[in-house]
Amino acid sequence: MYEIPIVENVLKANDEIAATNRARIHAAGIHAINLIGSPGCGKTTLLERTLERLRDEATVGVIAGDLATARDALRLRRWTEHVVQVNTGRGCHLEAHQVRQAFDRLDLATIDLLIIENVGNLICPVGFDLGHDAKVGMFSVSEGDDKAAKHPHLVMTSDVILLNKTDLLGVVPFERRVFLDDLARLRPDVPLIELSAATGRLEPWLAWLRRLIRRAAPAAPAPV
Amino acid sequence: MYEIPIVENVLKANDEIAATNRARIHAAGIHAINLIGSPGCGKTTLLERTLERLRDEATVGVIAGDLATARDALRLRRWTEHVVQVNTGRGCHLEAHQVRQAFDRLDLATIDLLIIENVGNLICPVGFDLGHDAKVGMFSVSEGDDKAAKHPHLVMTSDVILLNKTDLLGVVPFERRVFLDDLARLRPDVPLIELSAATGRLEPWLAWLRRLIRRAAPAAPAPV
Repeated sequence: MYEIPIVENVLKANDEIAATNRARIHAAGIHAINLIGSPGCGKTTLLERTLERLRDEATVGVIAGDLATARDALRLRRWTEHVVQVNTGRGCHLEAHQVRQAFDRLDLATIDLLIIENVGNLICPVGFDLGHDAKVGMFSVSEGDDKAAKHPHLVMTSDVILLNKTDLLGVVPFERRVFLDDLARLRPDVPLIELSAATGRLEPWLAWLRRLIRRAAPAAPAPV
Repeated sequence: MYEIPIVENVLKANDEIAATNRARIHAAGIHAINLIGSPGCGKTTLLERTLERLRDEATVGVIAGDLATARDALRLRRWTEHVVQVNTGRGCHLEAHQVRQAFDRLDLATIDLLIIENVGNLICPVGFDLGHDAKVGMFSVSEGDDKAAKHPHLVMTSDVILLNKTDLLGVVPFERRVFLDDLARLRPDVPLIELSAATGRLEPWLAWLRRLIRRAAPAAPAPV
Protein backbone atom coordinates (compact mmCIF):
# COMPACT_ATOMS: atom_id res chain seq x y z
CA MET A 1 0.00 0.00 0.00
CA TYR A 2 2.84 2.40 0.80
CA GLU A 3 4.97 1.56 -2.20
CA ILE A 4 2.99 3.05 -5.04
CA PRO A 5 3.20 6.72 -4.07
CA ILE A 6 6.95 6.40 -3.54
CA VAL A 7 7.52 4.81 -6.92
CA GLU A 8 5.45 7.58 -8.45
CA ASN A 9 7.56 10.18 -6.68
CA VAL A 10 10.75 8.63 -8.00
CA LEU A 11 9.38 8.66 -11.54
CA LYS A 12 8.05 12.19 -11.12
CA ALA A 13 11.45 13.44 -9.91
CA ASN A 14 13.08 11.63 -12.82
CA ASP A 15 10.63 13.17 -15.30
CA GLU A 16 11.31 16.66 -14.00
CA ILE A 17 15.06 16.25 -14.45
CA ALA A 18 14.49 14.66 -17.87
CA ALA A 19 12.52 17.76 -18.91
CA THR A 20 15.42 20.02 -17.95
CA ASN A 21 17.83 17.69 -19.80
CA ARG A 22 15.64 17.91 -22.90
CA ALA A 23 15.52 21.70 -22.66
CA ARG A 24 19.34 21.86 -22.49
CA ILE A 25 19.72 19.48 -25.42
CA HIS A 26 17.30 21.49 -27.56
CA ALA A 27 18.86 24.78 -26.45
CA ALA A 28 22.10 23.43 -27.96
CA GLY A 29 20.17 22.93 -31.20
CA ILE A 30 20.49 19.14 -31.20
CA HIS A 31 18.53 15.94 -30.58
CA ALA A 32 19.22 12.96 -28.32
CA ILE A 33 18.64 9.24 -28.74
CA ASN A 34 18.12 6.66 -25.98
CA LEU A 35 19.52 3.34 -27.25
CA ILE A 36 18.15 0.32 -25.38
CA GLY A 37 19.12 -3.30 -25.99
CA SER A 38 20.23 -6.44 -24.19
CA PRO A 39 23.82 -7.08 -23.11
CA GLY A 40 25.75 -8.09 -26.22
CA CYS A 41 23.19 -7.06 -28.85
CA GLY A 42 25.93 -4.93 -30.40
CA LYS A 43 25.17 -1.41 -29.16
CA THR A 44 28.80 -0.36 -28.79
CA THR A 45 29.90 -1.97 -32.05
CA LEU A 46 27.04 -0.17 -33.79
CA LEU A 47 28.17 3.13 -32.27
CA GLU A 48 31.81 2.50 -33.26
CA ARG A 49 30.81 1.95 -36.88
CA THR A 50 28.32 4.84 -36.74
CA LEU A 51 30.92 7.30 -35.45
CA GLU A 52 33.39 6.07 -38.03
CA ARG A 53 30.98 6.50 -40.92
CA LEU A 54 29.62 9.90 -39.82
CA ARG A 55 32.88 11.49 -38.73
CA ASP A 56 33.29 13.67 -41.82
CA GLU A 57 29.75 15.01 -41.61
CA ALA A 58 28.74 15.22 -37.94
CA THR A 59 30.16 15.32 -34.43
CA VAL A 60 28.41 12.73 -32.30
CA GLY A 61 28.55 12.71 -28.51
CA VAL A 62 27.93 9.53 -26.53
CA ILE A 63 26.94 8.84 -22.94
CA ALA A 64 27.57 5.15 -22.28
CA GLY A 65 25.94 3.40 -19.33
CA ASP A 66 27.31 0.22 -17.73
CA LEU A 67 27.33 -1.26 -14.27
CA ALA A 68 31.11 -1.39 -14.29
CA THR A 69 34.23 -0.74 -16.40
CA ALA A 70 35.04 2.03 -18.88
CA ARG A 71 35.49 -0.42 -21.75
CA ASP A 72 32.76 1.03 -23.94
CA ALA A 73 34.08 4.56 -23.56
CA LEU A 74 37.61 3.36 -24.36
CA ARG A 75 36.33 1.72 -27.54
CA LEU A 76 34.35 4.80 -28.57
CA ARG A 77 37.10 7.28 -27.78
CA ARG A 78 38.96 6.02 -30.83
CA TRP A 79 36.25 7.71 -32.88
CA THR A 80 35.20 10.76 -30.86
CA GLU A 81 36.50 12.74 -27.92
CA HIS A 82 32.93 13.41 -26.82
CA VAL A 83 32.31 10.29 -24.71
CA VAL A 84 31.25 10.01 -21.10
CA GLN A 85 31.07 6.67 -19.32
CA VAL A 86 28.48 6.38 -16.54
CA ASN A 87 28.96 3.45 -14.16
CA THR A 88 25.75 2.61 -12.36
CA GLY A 89 27.17 0.08 -9.87
CA ARG A 90 24.19 -2.20 -9.35
CA GLY A 91 21.80 0.16 -11.15
CA CYS A 92 19.95 -1.65 -13.93
CA HIS A 93 19.19 1.44 -16.05
CA LEU A 94 20.21 5.04 -16.57
CA GLU A 95 18.20 7.77 -14.87
CA ALA A 96 17.83 11.39 -15.88
CA HIS A 97 20.05 12.69 -13.06
CA GLN A 98 22.95 10.56 -14.35
CA VAL A 99 22.56 12.07 -17.81
CA ARG A 100 22.46 15.53 -16.23
CA GLN A 101 25.71 14.73 -14.40
CA ALA A 102 27.27 13.58 -17.66
CA PHE A 103 26.52 17.02 -19.17
CA ASP A 104 29.27 18.40 -16.90
CA ARG A 105 31.75 16.40 -18.97
CA LEU A 106 30.19 16.92 -22.38
CA ASP A 107 30.09 20.15 -24.39
CA LEU A 108 26.63 20.02 -25.97
CA ALA A 109 27.42 23.16 -28.00
CA THR A 110 30.08 21.35 -30.03
CA ILE A 111 28.15 18.19 -30.93
CA ASP A 112 25.52 17.59 -33.60
CA LEU A 113 23.80 14.61 -32.02
CA LEU A 114 23.77 12.95 -28.59
CA ILE A 115 23.44 9.18 -28.34
CA ILE A 116 22.79 7.73 -24.89
CA GLU A 117 23.76 4.06 -24.81
CA ASN A 118 21.72 2.69 -21.94
CA VAL A 119 22.75 -0.15 -19.61
CA GLY A 120 22.39 -3.51 -21.37
CA ASN A 121 18.89 -4.53 -20.30
CA LEU A 122 15.63 -4.93 -22.24
CA ILE A 123 13.37 -4.22 -19.27
CA CYS A 124 14.25 -1.60 -16.67
CA PRO A 125 15.52 1.22 -18.93
CA VAL A 126 12.18 1.33 -20.76
CA GLY A 127 10.28 3.26 -18.08
CA PHE A 128 12.76 6.08 -17.53
CA ASP A 129 12.74 9.29 -19.56
CA LEU A 130 16.28 10.65 -19.90
CA GLY A 131 15.40 13.75 -21.90
CA HIS A 132 15.82 12.03 -25.25
CA ASP A 133 13.83 12.78 -28.42
CA ALA A 134 13.78 9.23 -29.75
CA LYS A 135 13.89 5.83 -28.13
CA VAL A 136 15.63 3.13 -30.15
CA GLY A 137 14.86 -0.49 -29.22
CA MET A 138 17.60 -2.84 -30.36
CA PHE A 139 17.48 -6.62 -30.82
CA SER A 140 19.93 -9.00 -32.47
CA VAL A 141 19.67 -12.23 -34.42
CA SER A 142 21.82 -14.19 -31.97
CA GLU A 143 19.29 -13.54 -29.18
CA GLY A 144 16.61 -15.55 -30.95
CA ASP A 145 13.40 -14.63 -32.78
CA ASP A 146 11.18 -14.43 -29.67
CA LYS A 147 12.64 -11.33 -28.06
CA ALA A 148 10.19 -8.75 -29.46
CA ALA A 149 7.24 -10.82 -28.18
CA LYS A 150 8.90 -11.21 -24.80
CA HIS A 151 9.57 -7.49 -24.41
CA PRO A 152 6.34 -5.80 -25.52
CA HIS A 153 6.85 -2.71 -23.35
CA LEU A 154 10.07 -1.80 -25.18
CA VAL A 155 8.52 -2.52 -28.57
CA MET A 156 5.40 -0.48 -27.75
CA THR A 157 7.36 2.61 -26.74
CA SER A 158 10.22 2.65 -29.27
CA ASP A 159 10.37 5.12 -32.15
CA VAL A 160 12.38 2.71 -34.24
CA ILE A 161 13.38 -0.94 -33.84
CA LEU A 162 16.81 -2.23 -34.86
CA LEU A 163 17.58 -5.85 -35.65
CA ASN A 164 21.35 -6.27 -35.57
CA LYS A 165 23.65 -9.18 -36.51
CA THR A 166 21.80 -10.04 -39.71
CA ASP A 167 25.13 -11.57 -40.83
CA LEU A 168 24.25 -14.44 -38.45
CA LEU A 169 20.95 -15.25 -40.22
CA GLY A 170 21.34 -18.85 -41.33
CA VAL A 171 24.21 -19.36 -38.87
CA VAL A 172 22.19 -19.35 -35.64
CA PRO A 173 18.53 -20.38 -35.20
CA PHE A 174 16.33 -17.36 -35.99
CA GLU A 175 13.06 -17.42 -37.91
CA ARG A 176 12.90 -13.94 -39.38
CA ARG A 177 9.18 -14.41 -40.11
CA VAL A 178 8.43 -15.03 -36.40
CA PHE A 179 10.22 -11.83 -35.37
CA LEU A 180 8.49 -9.78 -38.09
CA ASP A 181 5.05 -11.22 -37.23
CA ASP A 182 5.47 -10.36 -33.54
CA LEU A 183 6.56 -6.86 -34.44
CA ALA A 184 3.62 -6.41 -36.85
CA ARG A 185 1.20 -7.63 -34.17
CA LEU A 186 2.58 -5.32 -31.47
CA ARG A 187 3.51 -2.25 -33.51
CA PRO A 188 2.48 -2.33 -37.18
CA ASP A 189 3.53 1.33 -37.43
CA VAL A 190 7.09 1.15 -36.09
CA PRO A 191 9.99 1.38 -38.55
CA LEU A 192 12.30 -1.65 -38.50
CA ILE A 193 15.92 -1.28 -39.54
CA GLU A 194 17.80 -4.52 -40.14
CA LEU A 195 21.56 -4.15 -39.99
CA SER A 196 24.87 -5.80 -39.37
CA ALA A 197 27.21 -3.56 -37.41
CA ALA A 198 30.00 -6.15 -37.51
CA THR A 199 30.09 -6.21 -41.31
CA GLY A 200 29.30 -2.53 -41.79
CA ARG A 201 25.83 -3.00 -43.27
CA LEU A 202 24.14 -0.03 -41.60
CA GLU A 203 23.07 2.37 -44.35
CA PRO A 204 19.35 2.73 -43.43
CA TRP A 205 20.36 3.44 -39.82
CA LEU A 206 22.79 6.16 -40.95
CA ALA A 207 20.07 7.67 -43.14
CA TRP A 208 17.70 7.71 -40.15
CA LEU A 209 20.37 9.46 -38.04
CA ARG A 210 21.14 11.98 -40.78
CA ARG A 211 17.47 13.00 -40.89
CA LEU A 212 17.52 13.49 -37.10
CA ILE A 213 20.74 15.51 -37.27
CA ARG A 214 19.36 17.78 -40.00
CA ARG A 215 16.00 18.32 -38.35
CA ALA A 216 15.88 21.59 -36.45
CA ALA A 217 15.64 21.13 -32.69
CA PRO A 218 12.39 22.40 -31.19
CA ALA A 219 12.68 26.02 -30.09
CA ALA A 220 13.47 26.35 -26.41
CA PRO A 221 10.61 27.83 -24.38
CA ALA A 222 11.08 31.54 -23.78
CA PRO A 223 12.59 32.29 -20.36
CA VAL A 224 9.99 33.43 -17.85
CA MET B 1 15.88 9.02 3.14
CA TYR B 2 12.57 7.16 3.10
CA GLU B 3 13.49 4.71 0.39
CA ILE B 4 16.11 2.59 2.10
CA PRO B 5 13.97 1.08 4.87
CA ILE B 6 11.28 0.18 2.34
CA VAL B 7 13.75 -1.53 0.03
CA GLU B 8 15.08 -3.42 3.04
CA ASN B 9 11.56 -4.49 3.97
CA VAL B 10 10.92 -5.76 0.46
CA LEU B 11 14.13 -7.79 0.53
CA LYS B 12 13.40 -9.02 4.05
CA ALA B 13 9.91 -10.17 3.04
CA ASN B 14 11.41 -11.84 -0.03
CA ASP B 15 14.06 -13.59 2.08
CA GLU B 16 11.44 -14.93 4.48
CA ILE B 17 9.40 -16.43 1.63
CA ALA B 18 12.60 -17.76 0.04
CA ALA B 19 13.41 -19.57 3.29
CA THR B 20 10.01 -21.28 3.29
CA ASN B 21 10.50 -22.17 -0.40
CA ARG B 22 13.87 -23.70 0.42
CA ALA B 23 12.36 -25.70 3.30
CA ARG B 24 9.65 -27.09 0.98
CA ILE B 25 12.21 -27.97 -1.70
CA HIS B 26 14.42 -29.77 0.81
CA ALA B 27 11.43 -31.46 2.45
CA ALA B 28 10.78 -32.99 -0.98
CA GLY B 29 14.34 -34.32 -0.89
CA ILE B 30 15.56 -32.26 -3.84
CA HIS B 31 17.65 -29.22 -4.73
CA ALA B 32 16.87 -26.13 -6.78
CA ILE B 33 18.92 -24.05 -9.20
CA ASN B 34 18.46 -20.36 -10.06
CA LEU B 35 19.60 -19.89 -13.67
CA ILE B 36 20.44 -16.27 -14.53
CA GLY B 37 21.54 -14.98 -17.92
CA SER B 38 20.85 -12.27 -20.47
CA PRO B 39 18.01 -12.48 -23.01
CA GLY B 40 19.12 -14.86 -25.72
CA CYS B 41 22.13 -16.40 -23.96
CA GLY B 42 20.51 -19.79 -24.57
CA LYS B 43 18.89 -20.63 -21.23
CA THR B 44 15.84 -22.33 -22.73
CA THR B 45 17.84 -24.17 -25.40
CA LEU B 46 20.17 -25.41 -22.67
CA LEU B 47 17.19 -26.65 -20.65
CA GLU B 48 15.66 -28.36 -23.70
CA ARG B 49 18.87 -30.28 -24.32
CA THR B 50 19.34 -30.93 -20.58
CA LEU B 51 15.85 -32.39 -20.17
CA GLU B 52 16.35 -34.49 -23.30
CA ARG B 53 19.66 -35.90 -22.11
CA LEU B 54 18.57 -36.56 -18.52
CA ARG B 55 15.10 -37.93 -19.21
CA ASP B 56 16.01 -41.58 -18.66
CA GLU B 57 17.70 -40.87 -15.34
CA ALA B 58 15.93 -37.96 -13.63
CA THR B 59 12.67 -36.02 -13.65
CA VAL B 60 13.45 -32.32 -13.86
CA GLY B 61 10.90 -29.64 -13.05
CA VAL B 62 11.22 -26.12 -14.47
CA ILE B 63 9.81 -22.75 -13.45
CA ALA B 64 10.37 -20.37 -16.37
CA GLY B 65 10.20 -16.60 -15.87
CA ASP B 66 9.46 -14.14 -18.66
CA LEU B 67 7.77 -10.77 -18.91
CA ALA B 68 5.32 -12.14 -21.46
CA THR B 69 4.37 -15.21 -23.52
CA ALA B 70 4.39 -18.92 -22.64
CA ARG B 71 6.88 -19.74 -25.40
CA ASP B 72 9.56 -21.13 -23.11
CA ALA B 73 7.10 -23.41 -21.31
CA LEU B 74 5.74 -24.61 -24.65
CA ARG B 75 9.27 -25.49 -25.78
CA LEU B 76 10.09 -27.27 -22.53
CA ARG B 77 6.81 -29.16 -22.31
CA ARG B 78 8.02 -31.35 -25.17
CA TRP B 79 10.52 -32.79 -22.68
CA THR B 80 8.74 -32.67 -19.32
CA GLU B 81 5.22 -32.20 -18.01
CA HIS B 82 6.63 -30.44 -14.95
CA VAL B 83 6.87 -26.90 -16.30
CA VAL B 84 5.33 -23.72 -14.94
CA GLN B 85 5.57 -20.42 -16.82
CA VAL B 86 5.58 -17.28 -14.68
CA ASN B 87 4.83 -14.05 -16.54
CA THR B 88 6.12 -11.04 -14.62
CA GLY B 89 4.52 -8.33 -16.77
CA ARG B 90 7.03 -5.50 -16.38
CA GLY B 91 8.88 -7.26 -13.57
CA CYS B 92 12.58 -7.53 -14.33
CA HIS B 93 13.29 -10.56 -12.12
CA LEU B 94 11.59 -13.41 -10.30
CA GLU B 95 10.79 -13.00 -6.62
CA ALA B 96 10.33 -15.69 -4.01
CA HIS B 97 6.55 -15.25 -3.84
CA GLN B 98 6.26 -16.04 -7.55
CA VAL B 99 8.20 -19.26 -7.05
CA ARG B 100 5.93 -20.08 -4.10
CA GLN B 101 2.90 -19.52 -6.33
CA ALA B 102 4.41 -21.80 -8.96
CA PHE B 103 4.57 -24.58 -6.35
CA ASP B 104 0.77 -24.78 -6.59
CA ARG B 105 1.22 -26.07 -10.13
CA LEU B 106 4.26 -28.23 -9.57
CA ASP B 107 4.42 -31.53 -7.67
CA LEU B 108 7.78 -31.29 -5.91
CA ALA B 109 7.39 -34.87 -4.63
CA THR B 110 7.62 -36.29 -8.16
CA ILE B 111 10.67 -34.40 -9.41
CA ASP B 112 14.37 -34.99 -8.78
CA LEU B 113 15.62 -31.48 -9.45
CA LEU B 114 14.04 -28.02 -9.79
CA ILE B 115 15.51 -25.53 -12.25
CA ILE B 116 14.26 -21.96 -12.05
CA GLU B 117 14.95 -20.13 -15.31
CA ASN B 118 14.96 -16.50 -14.28
CA VAL B 119 13.83 -13.55 -16.44
CA GLY B 120 16.49 -12.75 -19.07
CA ASN B 121 18.49 -10.07 -17.27
CA LEU B 122 22.07 -10.00 -15.94
CA ILE B 123 21.37 -7.44 -13.24
CA CYS B 124 18.12 -7.40 -11.27
CA PRO B 125 17.68 -11.14 -10.59
CA VAL B 126 21.03 -11.27 -8.81
CA GLY B 127 19.83 -9.73 -5.54
CA PHE B 128 16.76 -11.91 -4.96
CA ASP B 129 16.88 -15.21 -3.12
CA LEU B 130 14.24 -17.58 -4.51
CA GLY B 131 14.94 -20.50 -2.18
CA HIS B 132 17.48 -22.08 -4.51
CA ASP B 133 20.56 -24.04 -3.46
CA ALA B 134 22.81 -22.95 -6.30
CA LYS B 135 22.97 -19.84 -8.45
CA VAL B 136 24.13 -20.41 -12.02
CA GLY B 137 25.42 -17.34 -13.90
CA MET B 138 25.23 -17.84 -17.67
CA PHE B 139 27.02 -15.92 -20.42
CA SER B 140 27.36 -16.67 -24.13
CA VAL B 141 30.01 -16.11 -26.77
CA SER B 142 27.74 -14.01 -29.00
CA GLU B 143 27.37 -11.41 -26.21
CA GLY B 144 31.05 -10.52 -26.35
CA ASP B 145 34.01 -11.17 -24.06
CA ASP B 146 33.42 -8.20 -21.73
CA LYS B 147 30.24 -9.39 -20.03
CA ALA B 148 31.78 -10.96 -16.93
CA ALA B 149 33.70 -7.74 -16.21
CA LYS B 150 30.56 -5.69 -16.75
CA HIS B 151 28.45 -7.82 -14.39
CA PRO B 152 30.66 -8.38 -11.35
CA HIS B 153 27.76 -8.80 -8.91
CA LEU B 154 26.47 -11.85 -10.78
CA VAL B 155 29.97 -13.30 -11.11
CA MET B 156 30.72 -12.71 -7.42
CA THR B 157 27.61 -14.51 -6.21
CA SER B 158 27.34 -17.45 -8.64
CA ASP B 159 28.17 -21.01 -7.65
CA VAL B 160 29.08 -21.90 -11.20
CA ILE B 161 29.55 -19.86 -14.40
CA LEU B 162 28.42 -21.14 -17.79
CA LEU B 163 29.79 -19.91 -21.10
CA ASN B 164 27.40 -21.03 -23.83
CA LYS B 165 27.57 -20.89 -27.64
CA THR B 166 31.20 -22.01 -27.85
CA ASP B 167 30.29 -23.18 -31.38
CA LEU B 168 30.42 -19.47 -32.31
CA LEU B 169 34.06 -19.03 -31.20
CA GLY B 170 35.87 -17.89 -34.33
CA VAL B 171 32.55 -16.91 -35.95
CA VAL B 172 31.82 -13.81 -33.84
CA PRO B 173 34.34 -11.53 -32.12
CA PHE B 174 35.18 -13.02 -28.70
CA GLU B 175 38.61 -13.13 -27.09
CA ARG B 176 38.35 -16.16 -24.81
CA ARG B 177 41.48 -15.00 -22.94
CA VAL B 178 39.80 -11.69 -22.01
CA PHE B 179 36.75 -13.47 -20.60
CA LEU B 180 38.89 -15.97 -18.65
CA ASP B 181 41.15 -13.23 -17.27
CA ASP B 182 38.16 -11.21 -16.02
CA LEU B 183 36.71 -14.30 -14.41
CA ALA B 184 40.03 -15.18 -12.78
CA ARG B 185 40.37 -11.65 -11.43
CA LEU B 186 36.84 -11.54 -10.01
CA ARG B 187 36.38 -15.15 -8.89
CA PRO B 188 39.47 -17.37 -9.17
CA ASP B 189 37.55 -20.06 -7.27
CA VAL B 190 34.39 -20.32 -9.35
CA PRO B 191 33.97 -23.33 -11.67
CA LEU B 192 33.54 -22.39 -15.33
CA ILE B 193 31.68 -24.73 -17.66
CA GLU B 194 32.05 -24.00 -21.37
CA LEU B 195 29.31 -25.53 -23.48
CA SER B 196 27.34 -25.36 -26.68
CA ALA B 197 23.68 -26.13 -26.10
CA ALA B 198 22.87 -25.75 -29.81
CA THR B 199 25.29 -28.49 -30.83
CA GLY B 200 24.73 -30.69 -27.77
CA ARG B 201 28.17 -30.18 -26.22
CA LEU B 202 27.10 -30.05 -22.56
CA GLU B 203 28.68 -33.03 -20.83
CA PRO B 204 30.42 -31.16 -17.93
CA TRP B 205 27.13 -29.35 -17.20
CA LEU B 206 25.24 -32.65 -17.08
CA ALA B 207 27.89 -34.08 -14.74
CA TRP B 208 27.51 -31.05 -12.47
CA LEU B 209 23.72 -31.54 -12.41
CA ARG B 210 24.03 -35.28 -11.76
CA ARG B 211 26.14 -34.58 -8.68
CA LEU B 212 23.49 -32.14 -7.42
CA ILE B 213 20.69 -34.64 -8.09
CA ARG B 214 22.50 -37.42 -6.22
CA ARG B 215 23.49 -35.27 -3.27
CA ALA B 216 21.08 -35.75 -0.35
CA ALA B 217 18.98 -32.68 0.36
CA PRO B 218 19.66 -31.11 3.76
CA ALA B 219 17.40 -32.55 6.44
CA ALA B 220 14.34 -30.43 7.06
CA PRO B 221 14.28 -28.82 10.50
CA ALA B 222 12.18 -30.80 12.96
CA PRO B 223 8.65 -29.43 13.30
CA VAL B 224 8.24 -27.33 16.45
